[in-house]
Amino acid sequence: MPRHDGRAPNELRPVTVERGFVRNSPGSALYRAGRTTVLVTAHLSDKVPPFLEGKGVGWLTAEYSMLPGSTPTRKSRGTDGRSTEIQRLIGRSLRAVIDTKALGPWTLHVDADVIEADGGTRTAAITAAFIAVADALSSRFGEAAGTILRDSVAAVSTGIVAGEPVLDLDYPEDSTAEVDFNVIRLGGGGLVEVQGTGEGGTFSRPQLQALLDLADEGIDRLIQVQRETLGIHWPFIV
Amino acid sequence: MPRHDGRAPNELRPVTVERGFVRNSPGSALYRAGRTTVLVTAHLSDKVPPFLEGKGVGWLTAEYSMLPGSTPTRKSRGTDGRSTEIQRLIGRSLRAVIDTKALGPWTLHVDADVIEADGGTRTAAITAAFIAVADALSSRFGEAAGTILRDSVAAVSTGIVAGEPVLDLDYPEDSTAEVDFNVIRLGGGGLVEVQGTGEGGTFSRPQLQALLDLADEGIDRLIQVQRETLGIHWPFIV
Amino acid sequence: MPRHDGRAPNELRPVTVERGFVRNSPGSALYRAGRTTVLVTAHLSDKVPPFLEGKGVGWLTAEYSMLPGSTPTRKSRGTDGRSTEIQRLIGRSLRAVIDTKALGPWTLHVDADVIEADGGTRTAAITAAFIAVADALSSRFGEAAGTILRDSVAAVSTGIVAGEPVLDLDYPEDSTAEVDFNVIRLGGGGLVEVQGTGEGGTFSRPQLQALLDLADEGIDRLIQVQRETLGIHWPFIV
Amino acid sequence: MPRHDGRAPNELRPVTVERGFVRNSPGSALYRAGRTTVLVTAHLSDKVPPFLEGKGVGWLTAEYSMLPGSTPTRKSRGTDGRSTEIQRLIGRSLRAVIDTKALGPWTLHVDADVIEADGGTRTAAITAAFIAVADALSSRFGEAAGTILRDSVAAVSTGIVAGEPVLDLDYPEDSTAEVDFNVIRLGGGGLVEVQGTGEGGTFSRPQLQALLDLADEGIDRLIQVQRETLGIHWPFIV
Amino acid sequence: MPRHDGRAPNELRPVTVERGFVRNSPGSALYRAGRTTVLVTAHLSDKVPPFLEGKGVGWLTAEYSMLPGSTPTRKSRGTDGRSTEIQRLIGRSLRAVIDTKALGPWTLHVDADVIEADGGTRTAAITAAFIAVADALSSRFGEAAGTILRDSVAAVSTGIVAGEPVLDLDYPEDSTAEVDFNVIRLGGGGLVEVQGTGEGGTFSRPQLQALLDLADEGIDRLIQVQRETLGIHWPFIV
Amino acid sequence: MPRHDGRAPNELRPVTVERGFVRNSPGSALYRAGRTTVLVTAHLSDKVPPFLEGKGVGWLTAEYSMLPGSTPTRKSRGTDGRSTEIQRLIGRSLRAVIDTKALGPWTLHVDADVIEADGGTRTAAITAAFIAVADALSSRFGEAAGTILRDSVAAVSTGIVAGEPVLDLDYPEDSTAEVDFNVIRLGGGGLVEVQGTGEGGTFSRPQLQALLDLADEGIDRLIQVQRETLGIHWPFIV
Repeated sequence: MPRHDGRAPNELRPVTVERGFVRNSPGSALYRAGRTTVLVTAHLSDKVPPFLEGKGVGWLTAEYSMLPGSTPTRKSRGTDGRSTEIQRLIGRSLRAVIDTKALGPWTLHVDADVIEADGGTRTAAITAAFIAVADALSSRFGEAAGTILRDSVAAVSTGIVAGEPVLDLDYPEDSTAEVDFNVIRLGGGGLVEVQGTGEGGTFSRPQLQALLDLADEGIDRLIQVQRETLGIHWPFIV
Repeated sequence: MPRHDGRAPNELRPVTVERGFVRNSPGSALYRAGRTTVLVTAHLSDKVPPFLEGKGVGWLTAEYSMLPGSTPTRKSRGTDGRSTEIQRLIGRSLRAVIDTKALGPWTLHVDADVIEADGGTRTAAITAAFIAVADALSSRFGEAAGTILRDSVAAVSTGIVAGEPVLDLDYPEDSTAEVDFNVIRLGGGGLVEVQGTGEGGTFSRPQLQALLDLADEGIDRLIQVQRETLGIHWPFIV
Repeated sequence: MPRHDGRAPNELRPVTVERGFVRNSPGSALYRAGRTTVLVTAHLSDKVPPFLEGKGVGWLTAEYSMLPGSTPTRKSRGTDGRSTEIQRLIGRSLRAVIDTKALGPWTLHVDADVIEADGGTRTAAITAAFIAVADALSSRFGEAAGTILRDSVAAVSTGIVAGEPVLDLDYPEDSTAEVDFNVIRLGGGGLVEVQGTGEGGTFSRPQLQALLDLADEGIDRLIQVQRETLGIHWPFIV
Repeated sequence: MPRHDGRAPNELRPVTVERGFVRNSPGSALYRAGRTTVLVTAHLSDKVPPFLEGKGVGWLTAEYSMLPGSTPTRKSRGTDGRSTEIQRLIGRSLRAVIDTKALGPWTLHVDADVIEADGGTRTAAITAAFIAVADALSSRFGEAAGTILRDSVAAVSTGIVAGEPVLDLDYPEDSTAEVDFNVIRLGGGGLVEVQGTGEGGTFSRPQLQALLDLADEGIDRLIQVQRETLGIHWPFIV
Repeated sequence: MPRHDGRAPNELRPVTVERGFVRNSPGSALYRAGRTTVLVTAHLSDKVPPFLEGKGVGWLTAEYSMLPGSTPTRKSRGTDGRSTEIQRLIGRSLRAVIDTKALGPWTLHVDADVIEADGGTRTAAITAAFIAVADALSSRFGEAAGTILRDSVAAVSTGIVAGEPVLDLDYPEDSTAEVDFNVIRLGGGGLVEVQGTGEGGTFSRPQLQALLDLADEGIDRLIQVQRETLGIHWPFIV
Repeated sequence: MPRHDGRAPNELRPVTVERGFVRNSPGSALYRAGRTTVLVTAHLSDKVPPFLEGKGVGWLTAEYSMLPGSTPTRKSRGTDGRSTEIQRLIGRSLRAVIDTKALGPWTLHVDADVIEADGGTRTAAITAAFIAVADALSSRFGEAAGTILRDSVAAVSTGIVAGEPVLDLDYPEDSTAEVDFNVIRLGGGGLVEVQGTGEGGTFSRPQLQALLDLADEGIDRLIQVQRETLGIHWPFIV
């Protein structure tokens, strides 16, 4: 059965990234995947959380929020359980590529604000955040950003829709998926996080393998997008 | 003494408006005035506040917020006294052009989110909100939008900087102004709201007149921008 | 058309002030204007807000609240948008007469609690607060209070009711006014703040002038009341 | 050892009551006992709490708060554990004299706001609240108030200070008392509530008896004050 | 009239205590009285509240909460007025036996969580807390615990049910009692706190004496339970 | 390298379950796995969340909390991001076995309170919750519980510790694990949720397979524990 928008099962939605969308932020990206739009900004502050004070290491923290206009029915402001869960996921995912000792006693603040929500906002936020963080680090530390960042990181959703494993679900797919599966992976291939949930059913081990295969394909392409977006600011030696 | 960015005392910053920036919202505008960028969305809901239930009339309510990345130093999320004051001002200003009886039992929700803050965010929000509201009304009520809206409304800041009355203060001017003066006016000329504060001094009656003159000039031009942006969706007979 | 209580358009309600109503406070005033009663207390603390620490300058902050019994229908406790707006206005107005360098690293806390609300509570609070602040400063700094205070400050409401500009609106007038206009002014004549809102209409430039004229008359009389109340404690050389 | 202010062990501080201090409230009393001043207002609303809906019986609820200026060092606004405890005590004490069936589906709201605190604010609030409640009931139900109220109620503090049982502690006594004992009693003699706490020690059964004897004396006199204050509005047949 | 469960008027429900129920806590007790079950844990921290900093003395603070499953109808989480009142009572009661100078700059944290509620949870919490506190002190300070604790403390409820004074009310009795009376007393006999409330009536002086007599009997037995539970860890010389 | 407590890599900690620990709850279980103890209660209410009103289907919601005494250093009360994430996981996991149509318009409330925390509290909560839910359903619906429940569900943690995949991590293992992996599975074998996080590293596809294998072993045994605990109340035909 073809997908409702005609995509192949392993096809991403078109992705565009506008780097430096917010001129006041040292790192920012307006990230669009189909009709999902997320604005991510990154700032550095010279304070660390209490549990790290005096240890000489840094931290990264993230906040995720949906603007009221991001959904067809206006969404009330404020943090709910879902956004708490997502911002913790974004934080863990980005910390996986930060060498906190090399960073030193700074905190990176990542803010992901959803401007239009059409599925996959959390994975879009992670993929965009890597770009914003790379720019914020370059702007403060110059080439040393390449030693603070250990690798690139990107994320993609997969899922089982109408019995078929597919890549990068939009909202109509997401809301009818039997299984919802998010994968966060490094450029170098290591898995950072996998989260799979049977929303309206369960899944078998072979299905899980198929979803991981799809995610690998998608993440490879998103890392290419990150690299093209950053261009000469790509922090790693190619 | 010339202004720090070379503008004439009665010169606005360049304004651009991207209508329909948020495809999920029935009305939206990304409004830029120099380095100030505000995203405004408008939604309709079929509920009214308790004090209007059963009366057949509608309401308009506004929320104003600054994204964490909108200022050079990251701004914490959450409503403070300043944002409370501003969202009440936006609400009053837009209600001035709504015929709540013609609207009927609907609530218009206006959300103004500051993406980049460089002075004049509250007046930018009001000017942009008129566009988003006009579109939201058209999208729901078609041509009847022109009877629900009684007039257009726009806003501009003025102030006394280094002893001189000037129009449309950016942040460097705003933070050193002796007097800060915001004017909200209808297209037809009636004043909706004037708010003037001596931040680091006081002002005289003649100075107040000079500021009102500047505001009139600026608002005339902003109403022209609104008209050009809405084009054939301008809700009034020309 | 005569006013509903027989006052002339430029007539204030009778004002009485009971200085030192709260014996535990270094400065306090029970201020009555007609059936509006506001209790203002002023305290000094030897802490300043974080943004002023180590700078040697002082600050003034204000809180405004309505007691539950102040309105015919009981009012729930707690801060709403309106009270936030008012307490910010009170703070700005009083700071306009404080020389924060002469004050040194102290914070003046002004608390305005409305005991009976019949219109004009915010302007009553400002006029009363000047008395409480003058007493609190005298009680701590003696005659030096006269150098910390740069001038006196008072406030009055005006508005357009049934088409006519009138002074000092009570609640029945306020709730039917087309335009509501508050003016805060120094004893020496400089305007500190003007706030005019077309609640159920708009206003023209000539109307604005008429309202400012009325306000000048009213404030002149209120400054006289302040002077008589403080008597020999009037902080300025006469 | 004589008391610090020269009172006899069984002597109350001078009490004055200003009935109707708040003209907007159907029942109010400004109650002064020495340097303790409490303002109590009472309102009726035609709603009852959810657990009483549809049962035809009424309710009484109380709130207690200290104004920031009520203590020599400014007190921050907001409810703490102590005020929660006190407002629950005020509510229980007044409910002891309300026939909730005779009242019918109304809620009495009692608000006690401390204007000056010098010890004994909770007992002052209860004694004053009876007056405000009697007036609020008369104003709504006329003579039927006398059937809704079953009896009068008043309260007084006692304690052991420097080893001696004394009546009506002011703040200097209260803060050094070994035992703090509050008694709430009906005009007819029945005890509504006794609360005794060994703050810096414990107490014996004979000491408890002595404190109850003192409280009986004090409450007899306070009921006389209530009766004189209400005059012909005293709701009971004499 | 016999009690609904066949107990004599002066008979406690069966009490069992499981010391050390929580292996992570230095002091803990699972306390059961009939169908009331309370879990109390005690911890020491090396911080004191701000008002005691630098004074070399310690503090004890308590929290009380009911688990959602503790009542037949699920109870929502969160602190209400009743639990605030109870945790303040627990704190005062335990502080009555702590020599805060001997303790030194430590804070004892007592947590009482109700697992099953069938009346008398606050008095159970106090009686159990003494055991947990004694163990927490022994675990940190060894035999010196016996000098930090001045005496033992226990609590019991009494009340007037169907006209009769009875000891240790369960929920069916408590909810129909005319008078509810809680007594907290030291092992040595001194009263720490008495709290009596006429819930559906009032009480006389002789009734108060009868309730105190019953409480004395009950507390004597509970202190015996505490002693048997602690065994050789009973902190006092016998 | 052997595990610090001598367990084999695929060995669970000893599990004991006390059914009906809370007599006031229709379903409850005190679940111990080594030194981790979780109390789970289940209640039914005849209300459903707003989004399900009038649809005839039911819901299950969960809350998760750690008692202050559950950790060696006292844990403050209150919901943080971690507990929000966990209670959402518990809810999703249990909903996977509820036929909400067969349940009808009831809400199941699951409360998981951690009494002792030594790793694996979220998976313990899920495994215990199935027992409490089965009992709550039986107590209300008798044998129909077997049609409301579609299958059993249990959960276990696995992870990579010192390079080795191991089953059922205790706290010392959890806090040093490179990868933390939780699996929730039905009795029938379908996966409900997998969540794997590289806390201090990343993981490869083969490692992920090894962890899933371990989890399968562990869950098979836990389902056996559930079956033995429920005995004749096991809701499915064997």
